[in-house]
Amino acid sequence: MARHLAAPPFELTVWNRTAAKATRFAEETGARAAATPAEAARQASVVITCVTASPEVESLLDGPDGLLAGMQRGSTLVDCTSGDPASSRRIAARLAERGVDFIDAPVSGGVSGAEKGALTIMCGGDARVLERVRPVLEAFGEKIVHCGPVGAGDALKAVNNAMLAVHIWALAEGLATLSKAGVSASVALDVINASSGRSNTSQNLFPARVLTRAFPRTFKLALLEKDATIAADVAREQRVPSGVMQLTAELFRLARVELGEEADHVEAAKLVERLAGQEIR
Amino acid sequence: MARHLAAPPFELTVWNRTAAKATRFAEETGARAAATPAEAARQASVVITCVTASPEVESLLDGPDGLLAGMQRGSTLVDCTSGDPASSRRIAARLAERGVDFIDAPVSGGVSGAEKGALTIMCGGDARVLERVRPVLEAFGEKIVHCGPVGAGDALKAVNNAMLAVHIWALAEGLATLSKAGVSASVALDVINASSGRSNTSQNLFPARVLTRAFPRTFKLALLEKDATIAADVAREQRVPSGVMQLTAELFRLARVELGEEADHVEAAKLVERLAGQEIR
Amino acid sequence: MARHLAAPPFELTVWNRTAAKATRFAEETGARAAATPAEAARQASVVITCVTASPEVESLLDGPDGLLAGMQRGSTLVDCTSGDPASSRRIAARLAERGVDFIDAPVSGGVSGAEKGALTIMCGGDARVLERVRPVLEAFGEKIVHCGPVGAGDALKAVNNAMLAVHIWALAEGLATLSKAGVSASVALDVINASSGRSNTSQNLFPARVLTRAFPRTFKLALLEKDATIAADVAREQRVPSGVMQLTAELFRLARVELGEEADHVEAAKLVERLAGQEIR
Amino acid sequence: MARHLAAPPFELTVWNRTAAKATRFAEETGARAAATPAEAARQASVVITCVTASPEVESLLDGPDGLLAGMQRGSTLVDCTSGDPASSRRIAARLAERGVDFIDAPVSGGVSGAEKGALTIMCGGDARVLERVRPVLEAFGEKIVHCGPVGAGDALKAVNNAMLAVHIWALAEGLATLSKAGVSASVALDVINASSGRSNTSQNLFPARVLTRAFPRTFKLALLEKDATIAADVAREQRVPSGVMQLTAELFRLARVELGEEADHVEAAKLVERLAGQEIR
Repeated sequence: MARHLAAPPFELTVWNRTAAKATRFAEETGARAAATPAEAARQASVVITCVTASPEVESLLDGPDGLLAGMQRGSTLVDCTSGDPASSRRIAARLAERGVDFIDAPVSGGVSGAEKGALTIMCGGDARVLERVRPVLEAFGEKIVHCGPVGAGDALKAVNNAMLAVHIWALAEGLATLSKAGVSASVALDVINASSGRSNTSQNLFPARVLTRAFPRTFKLALLEKDATIAADVAREQRVPSGVMQLTAELFRLARVELGEEADHVEAAKLVERLAGQEIR
Repeated sequence: MARHLAAPPFELTVWNRTAAKATRFAEETGARAAATPAEAARQASVVITCVTASPEVESLLDGPDGLLAGMQRGSTLVDCTSGDPASSRRIAARLAERGVDFIDAPVSGGVSGAEKGALTIMCGGDARVLERVRPVLEAFGEKIVHCGPVGAGDALKAVNNAMLAVHIWALAEGLATLSKAGVSASVALDVINASSGRSNTSQNLFPARVLTRAFPRTFKLALLEKDATIAADVAREQRVPSGVMQLTAELFRLARVELGEEADHVEAAKLVERLAGQEIR
Repeated sequence: MARHLAAPPFELTVWNRTAAKATRFAEETGARAAATPAEAARQASVVITCVTASPEVESLLDGPDGLLAGMQRGSTLVDCTSGDPASSRRIAARLAERGVDFIDAPVSGGVSGAEKGALTIMCGGDARVLERVRPVLEAFGEKIVHCGPVGAGDALKAVNNAMLAVHIWALAEGLATLSKAGVSASVALDVINASSGRSNTSQNLFPARVLTRAFPRTFKLALLEKDATIAADVAREQRVPSGVMQLTAELFRLARVELGEEADHVEAAKLVERLAGQEIR
Repeated sequence: MARHLAAPPFELTVWNRTAAKATRFAEETGARAAATPAEAARQASVVITCVTASPEVESLLDGPDGLLAGMQRGSTLVDCTSGDPASSRRIAARLAERGVDFIDAPVSGGVSGAEKGALTIMCGGDARVLERVRPVLEAFGEKIVHCGPVGAGDALKAVNNAMLAVHIWALAEGLATLSKAGVSASVALDVINASSGRSNTSQNLFPARVLTRAFPRTFKLALLEKDATIAADVAREQRVPSGVMQLTAELFRLARVELGEEADHVEAAKLVERLAGQEIR
């Protein structure tokens, strides 16, 4: 994502927790590497953060080296983290006290979308602020969507990922059942993908990752658990009865405990297999 | 489906619980109308049943007018009902005692697939028996898949429909949550359909049926509840932990009680809306 | 509860949102009625609040008439509301800035326990602060338990009530099932109450309230839903997989929507009956 | 249970899969040991079976050594197995063809109830048949309850045990949450046991087995999983929405996979602890 901003008309300053990464990136691209978040933010009209979760964004704000110490009145913080709406609203309120605008802007499209500059960006915040920063977002995003007030981008990203989580778990249950009943999973997927039960998960993820037993590690199960939990929390906060999303969040929490922090999200199927005593094949 | 079998090389005899329907169909197509299942089956090498559920197939078998009284040794019963595997195995065993073969053959593709003769047919039973009846199935099916032993077709159909049920309920929960949080459902669907959480449900059903408030009645919720319950029962019988499928079966049972026998399957979203106090829009 | 504090050695000042209630109480008991929370708090060493939920406690704090305007350094706020731990921690932090201590102190025992001064009081906060206010709590409490830090009382009350909610819902499912299968609910309760599945719910609530169809309104379902949701939120915050508590919170939310704000907690059984199409009897 | 029938007025013949057990029992008590079920049943007016599950009862019926080969017209089979209603109805129908009556009669009360002859016996079947065999049941039962038609005893036993399963799992979730939030489980149980959330599980099982870490093996988790699944199946068959019972059956299935066939039912709490990363204490 940063690479798309490293050429004119943009002037890019980067900071990373691992200084060597920032230095190497700066050498490769001609960007400037800053020693602290404050320094990176100092002269920027737009600051972009992209970390694991909202609490880590909040921890970047404070202290003499923090973003708040560097950001100028009239600038905008665009947070591409898959955050949670409550935290984003809290961050926006703190920034507003200093005349700084905030947009929550989680992305989808994966590594390849980022490389091609073709991400979908889900934006929450004031529409005029979004228009102001849109040229920057267009450098790495193809589909830039204004979703609503601050937190709306987070909420939509979380719900999309909750659907992904539901689809993975349900399909693993279904295919393990069929495998155990003597129906080959590849036949089953072939039929489902021509029928009403198909999804991105059945069309793309399971054929390439589960049937092949490849299970590449492209998106951490721990992060999908976080997103499914954010969606479940928003549903509860909004008082929407949401048994399927609540249960799925619990099941992914369970999978995270059992499979560990490094597991890929599709490895949830492995836990279903273990509990079923049946490989999906 | 019958219409595709009403021309040579096939010789079609039809029977329907409502005699007038069979008579009218016979007049239109040149098929012969029989007065009883036994009479319809008498000289057929292949008998096709397509009713609401397996218990109704079983009730067609017995008595002086039943299929068993008519079917000949060496003929085959192809049951296109979305049945349950346990019943199909029971039916197959009873037929086998009389030298009659059985294939469970539920279909997918909806009314338009049936009209075009382009259904997917999921077949359970002996592979040689399937080869023998394949020319008949090809009259109305485009994709004829041998899934496994008797009951395998039922199991696969049920799991496909269980996925559909899960997708509908989860998406309704997610979109009601987003609507209530200020994110428009049409924006949300637009983004989800470009992202990892997409499914046939998000791409086709919700835009055309929920956002428009059209809710056409094409496939009964009562039938989807039946199928989701069959899948949940097979999962339990196979001892596959399957919380998402079990819970979804319960939620559709609840929806069936609240929305009635005539509701369309996508109207499940209306119950989620009522419980959320929020229209999806 | 207040009545037990209206006699020496205590000097009681009361305030109520409905002024007439406070005046009447003052006339009956000799307590003083205050016009505002601030006035009630002015000279008190201990202030006791008991309202519906934590947000209402928070709304009593602020403004020129609020508790913060009245409470003195060195005094203690004891909150007998069935609150939530996160809010209680927030309230405690705000009070601490002014040198005021806080104890969350939800109670159990119902109306009769309050009348007899025999409540169980679940206290969260500093043990020394609790010792200081213990004589006040002993006026209306029989069992005064130090549960842990601020919020611990809330958490324990919420979990107790979540167990109650789980027991009510599960027993309604079980007895509706048995009634429908031809087993009388009174026979079933008689057996269960002599067996391993018994609970306070099966021994006391269902015989007296469901079998009799009396359904007295003693504790609102809306409040039990609130408590079950607090427990579910604490479980999620603590990252404890908790499918049963999460699902039960959803089901009570659903019941609250369908049965309304005035329904008694045991009327949840009526919703199960409606969905089952079967009275428990 | 057998020991109470080994003295006059009863004449007892015993059979056990492990012949040595039957022989030893016969030597100790003066009962007669039979070599086969058929032989044991030959001259009996009442035959009592007590095995792990209904399929094993069914497997005792057939073959030259089976019960059906031995039982006389006019005799009664009393099945003390915790069976499932569908199987019991099937068994009753087969026996009825030979003029043999059937009572399903699962018991509760544990090892100590059996030793004292103080079991609760839940009977399903014809009331007159029950009256006929009542003197035999009174030898080992204190509370003999006619629950309804064949299968009613099984259904009630399964629902009682499903309540037990729900209570164990929910309490483990609740106490793990409280432990992690800093509330001691022994304080929590003390308060819950004085409040509305108490149950046999909180009053007897957790203090003696979980807090002490004793976890004695008195009743297999595998059997409780079987019973919870029977209850869930009956609820589904009766079309009673039953999310809590369905989910609990799934969770115990999961626990059975993870903890093995020998685990005690209360060890389910250990799995909750593992998933929570927190011991209950």
